[in-house]
Amino acid sequence: MAKVIATCRNPEAASALQALHGLYAQNLTVLRLDATREAEIRDAAEAVAKEHGHLDLLINSGAMLHPSARGETSLREISAEGLSITLATNTIGPLVMAKYFAPLLRKGTGAFGDQFPDQAKQHTAILVNLTAKVGSIGDNALGGWYSYRMSKAALNMATKNLSIELGRGKTKVVCVCLHPGTVDTDLSKPYHRNVPRVKLFTPEYSVNCLMNIIEKLDMGKTGKFFAWDGSELPW
Amino acid sequence: MAKVIATCRNPEAASALQALHGLYAQNLTVLRLDATREAEIRDAAEAVAKEHGHLDLLINSGAMLHPSARGETSLREISAEGLSITLATNTIGPLVMAKYFAPLLRKGTGAFGDQFPDQAKQHTAILVNLTAKVGSIGDNALGGWYSYRMSKAALNMATKNLSIELGRGKTKVVCVCLHPGTVDTDLSKPYHRNVPRVKLFTPEYSVNCLMNIIEKLDMGKTGKFFAWDGSELPW
Repeated sequence: MAKVIATCRNPEAASALQALHGLYAQNLTVLRLDATREAEIRDAAEAVAKEHGHLDLLINSGAMLHPSARGETSLREISAEGLSITLATNTIGPLVMAKYFAPLLRKGTGAFGDQFPDQAKQHTAILVNLTAKVGSIGDNALGGWYSYRMSKAALNMATKNLSIELGRGKTKVVCVCLHPGTVDTDLSKPYHRNVPRVKLFTPEYSVNCLMNIIEKLDMGKTGKFFAWDGSELPW
Repeated sequence: MAKVIATCRNPEAASALQALHGLYAQNLTVLRLDATREAEIRDAAEAVAKEHGHLDLLINSGAMLHPSARGETSLREISAEGLSITLATNTIGPLVMAKYFAPLLRKGTGAFGDQFPDQAKQHTAILVNLTAKVGSIGDNALGGWYSYRMSKAALNMATKNLSIELGRGKTKVVCVCLHPGTVDTDLSKPYHRNVPRVKLFTPEYSVNCLMNIIEKLDMGKTGKFFAWDGSELPW
């Protein structure tokens, strides 16, 4: 069974994660990590390297809508500070994660995803950045949510760049952007009453959808942006 | 003749701008403005409001490649700090400019661009964010330049959002992303020897190309991304 390392800023307060740890203590490690602190990311990567030597799948899922917990509805509500904090959390954090974990992904065993018969096209690992459909510029018809939309568009660019850099060389890493749908979590809580019930996914349902996509990824799909149902999204 | 307000961080050191001011003192005002300081932007907008009452065209052109003056060639070279400074300058600055100048653009006279015969589709002003072809995720085939590419992709999203918000209401503002080509300026200087001479534009040539595009903009073109030659770029 796979070994899973979950990270969060405050493990003591993460009761759901602690409950999972109680059930799967052999397979689940919980590491303290604030993705806006480069030194903590470097230390976490060193700890994983020492314990496991490699990583097969990295999922960057940490994000905020905005420090106010609500997206900006108009230009008047934007501020340099709100933009800066959102970009640090949603965009810079995941890319700095990629910087320190890429060497471990290069050493992965290729346990996730489909593999090409041609060895030159096989991958060692998969890097997933959870972005969002509202991070698609081409799909944007409503506006608003400046900080969140911009942070996800920039993360999409980072993922495309990563797919190019980590697609070169002897050991290749598949890098994709995934849209998880609207999931019943704290992030989207202020908006739940506007979401039709069938479109508000439980975390379990969304994770199952995303794992189905991840299990079918290969180097032919690297650098792309997929929704929870497997459909490709425009940039 | 149009009144032009040029802004820069250090007017005393901007010798080319001072020379222009010497030739066109009646028409050119030089304002001190650091686009990473929200209070300075607010003050500048208040000064322009007091002196002119409106604005017909806002061009956000300030940008850096990276604090090192060179784009990152690989993931190893990225840092949270470098990303943060580049995003503050290239992405947050222009959006905060839009926040404070939007009310003046809403009051513009429509002096630039083509106007629809239908009054409901006419615009009062134009907002241009200079982004870059390397800020196109869909066009990205080479990777690298993480900070610069990400900052411009995020600015493209901001521009799309602006086009939606400022396209609503009685007075409309055309908002576009423009790619100026590779221009003989300090920003691209470290790369000039790799650029074929015919592809390295003088500032005058690039500005003429961009003004030709701006003079043909209308509400049908808002929210789009054009290169110096008028061709539309993908997101």
